[in-house]
Amino acid sequence: MARLIEELKKLPGVGTKSAQRFAFHILRSSDEDASALADAVRGLKASLRLCSICNNVTDVDPCAYCSNPTRNQRLVCVVEEPTNIASVERTRGYQGVYHVLHGTLSPLHGIGPDQLRAGTLVGRVERGEVDEVILATSPTLEGEATAHWLASALRRPSVKITRIATGVPAGSDIEYADEVTMARAMEGRRDI
Amino acid sequence: MARLIEELKKLPGVGTKSAQRFAFHILRSSDEDASALADAVRGLKASLRLCSICNNVTDVDPCAYCSNPTRNQRLVCVVEEPTNIASVERTRGYQGVYHVLHGTLSPLHGIGPDQLRAGTLVGRVERGEVDEVILATSPTLEGEATAHWLASALRRPSVKITRIATGVPAGSDIEYADEVTMARAMEGRRDI
Repeated sequence: MARLIEELKKLPGVGTKSAQRFAFHILRSSDEDASALADAVRGLKASLRLCSICNNVTDVDPCAYCSNPTRNQRLVCVVEEPTNIASVERTRGYQGVYHVLHGTLSPLHGIGPDQLRAGTLVGRVERGEVDEVILATSPTLEGEATAHWLASALRRPSVKITRIATGVPAGSDIEYADEVTMARAMEGRRDI
Repeated sequence: MARLIEELKKLPGVGTKSAQRFAFHILRSSDEDASALADAVRGLKASLRLCSICNNVTDVDPCAYCSNPTRNQRLVCVVEEPTNIASVERTRGYQGVYHVLHGTLSPLHGIGPDQLRAGTLVGRVERGEVDEVILATSPTLEGEATAHWLASALRRPSVKITRIATGVPAGSDIEYADEVTMARAMEGRRDI
């Protein structure tokens, strides 16, 4: 019991209290439910791998995006983490594919260009397989540094490299925008 | 005393408790302090007016922006309220002038084009006095409607009309961007 509680506490946002509640719930549940949970946990790690093209987490290789003929395989959106794909998909407007870096440049944490998984993307661009790369890393310090490094690493005459817009969020009053966001919104103004 | 408390309660964010504290503070303060406050309140309304060019609140006409020869008088940033000027000034990067609408289109509240103070701006654009109009209304429903209405009201071959960028705020993770903001950030992507 103590061992299970210790393991459950490693889940994000789960403290001792929650871990105990989970453990007692499992204790009270049927044998089938308990082994179904155990199998699902073990199965996740056994069946999931990274897509050999885009590094997305997947159970088939290549992943559902990279093998989808209705998506534009020549338009690649670069994100930091697999979860960021969901943010872009929620817009329901993107019809290209992805490339997951699994991190950002962060010299303070010893993460340099070699620790990012950018190699397959550089290869695709070099072979002329990509028309546009959208750098959709976050507009944070690390995300911006990563975008600028990638832009120079990918620069080829055949490829267009773009960065998502930084600005005032939709539905928000400009009164609540900080000065950096407001400055970027002014710089990034577009013809209407 | 009750009359003062009633008047103080009309200030934003001031309830009965705060109004009473203010009133007792004034009661205890010296005669000079009390009349200085009364004069300052009366003086504000007597000396302040709207700039005849840009509608900004000012004590001299034209206002400090419209009469400043070091600012680009042919670049006009349109904002909803006088307080929004502070948001743009904080960026320290803007060298043009302003135009204050004193509101946004809001059919539900009976505010149509005639209720907005856009006349002097239309006149300046018609006389060819403006090179670029930056529409810096908020990316809210009303702000967007106002920007689109103004864009069509100001459309002349001689003038460039732009809209500030909507997107992920600087320093924020794209994981926290709502789908509309993310969609606008993708649409508004720019070459890097």
